[in-house]
Amino acid sequence: MINHLVVIGAGLIGGSFALAMRRRGLVGRITGIGRGRANLEEAVRLGVIDAIGGSVAAAVADADLVLIAIPVGAMSALFRELAWALPPGAILIDAGSTKQDVIAAARAALGSKIGQFVPGHPIAGAERSGAAAARAQLFEGKPVILTPLAENRAADVDLVEDLWAACGARVERMAQGDHDRVFAAVSHLPHLAAYALMADLAERADADTYFRFAGSGFRDFTRIAGSHPEMWRDIALANRDALLDELDTYIDKLEAIRGLIEARDGQSLENLFARARQARHNWIEGTLT
Amino acid sequence: MINHLVVIGAGLIGGSFALAMRRRGLVGRITGIGRGRANLEEAVRLGVIDAIGGSVAAAVADADLVLIAIPVGAMSALFRELAWALPPGAILIDAGSTKQDVIAAARAALGSKIGQFVPGHPIAGAERSGAAAARAQLFEGKPVILTPLAENRAADVDLVEDLWAACGARVERMAQGDHDRVFAAVSHLPHLAAYALMADLAERADADTYFRFAGSGFRDFTRIAGSHPEMWRDIALANRDALLDELDTYIDKLEAIRGLIEARDGQSLENLFARARQARHNWIEGTLT
Repeated sequence: MINHLVVIGAGLIGGSFALAMRRRGLVGRITGIGRGRANLEEAVRLGVIDAIGGSVAAAVADADLVLIAIPVGAMSALFRELAWALPPGAILIDAGSTKQDVIAAARAALGSKIGQFVPGHPIAGAERSGAAAARAQLFEGKPVILTPLAENRAADVDLVEDLWAACGARVERMAQGDHDRVFAAVSHLPHLAAYALMADLAERADADTYFRFAGSGFRDFTRIAGSHPEMWRDIALANRDALLDELDTYIDKLEAIRGLIEARDGQSLENLFARARQARHNWIEGTLT
Repeated sequence: MINHLVVIGAGLIGGSFALAMRRRGLVGRITGIGRGRANLEEAVRLGVIDAIGGSVAAAVADADLVLIAIPVGAMSALFRELAWALPPGAILIDAGSTKQDVIAAARAALGSKIGQFVPGHPIAGAERSGAAAARAQLFEGKPVILTPLAENRAADVDLVEDLWAACGARVERMAQGDHDRVFAAVSHLPHLAAYALMADLAERADADTYFRFAGSGFRDFTRIAGSHPEMWRDIALANRDALLDELDTYIDKLEAIRGLIEARDGQSLENLFARARQARHNWIEGTLT
């Protein structure tokens, strides 16, 4: 039981965690902190949080658990504030989509309190954002990755794992470098690829003609281009090295396909498409390749 | 009223057209032709077609309307067969995803019968295929592009337009070159980009680790990588020139994004993502950019 939960960033992720904890009766009261006053007021109105914190320091003073659910680029400044404000008994968790840079920022700022920070990443993004998009079921069946630190107390990591599991999540532990490499490929790169296609078309003088005939395949392919620009700017920069590697690999693959089309090599194209289709089929069916 | 409709390729598109025509009472009887005997038998069992044609020539002998709904790469051979088999009064239509090469193949094969061919493209693909996937509502609200020929009789083009409209489609006429350029960008390129990502990951030794953490964004982005490999091989080759142009433009855009990440230019990244998101929002809302 968490007596006082403080959610810094009462948006889709922070708000959904608050709702899920409350629904399971795992929390006494919930304070929200954030940049947008209107969003925080809506969060109170919707019952996502009980109260709006006056400042980070005041809000966390008697907190048992603090969740950071803001864009990763804004976390450094927050860690510096928490370095003196975080009470000794509180556990600090985050929902950042990248882990190595978040952990580096925490380590640089938190000093001796680094052991209170249990880094994590719930895989439950959506292109909707804000407290109005929050829902208690968001994490059901979704993965939550924890990348614990050597300085963490085992009991704290276990508690965080139990809390996410209580939200319905499938919790896994992973090394921070592995996390960033995997998510560069399966999440960050696809977002860039979807943004790239939308930007490419939108910049054309006759963009209307293109969009008029775009169908359901285009709609699904570009769905993640509806994601939050600031959040994804931060992720792209935070996971820079892994993402540059993935972009290079992906551009190489597109160049290879280009070469097959130019050479009219239908058999190799069909083989590549068939392998891709089979891999997706296996993935969807849960029979991993 | 069409007395005798012949559908060559009783799959998703051909079967759905047959079902839609029958539901509106616009057709007397429907004969199906195709490579896969099992699929044709299922089409009869499901009431998609009334009978299986023994040969193209026999089936079309007293046809009023013939729909070609097979991969575009297989159309040349079919046009050569239809050159002598197609009766003078019949109208020939197709559902090919590319138009310039299909029209060139028709023109090369059909000779003086070219005026009977009214080329078109229904935009209603799905990753499912076969007669079992067919449904009468498939074309409702979907665009169908007609790219009429100078040799077509105006009355024939109007009739084809009326038939697709009766299926619920929004019919538009377009020049064949414009069609191929637009669909290279909004359909063919995204398919290649989705296939490329799936193939890239599937080829890795630790592919399992990646797929295990792929979430809903990845699922939607790669949905079209579940599409039919042979069909998309044919489309890639048939629309080669436009598609090579689009691939180059897309790779350039990815390289530009790569450059912004490498230079840590967060502001330009955010601006690009915001433009893309706004364009998508406008498109979804129907307020075209």
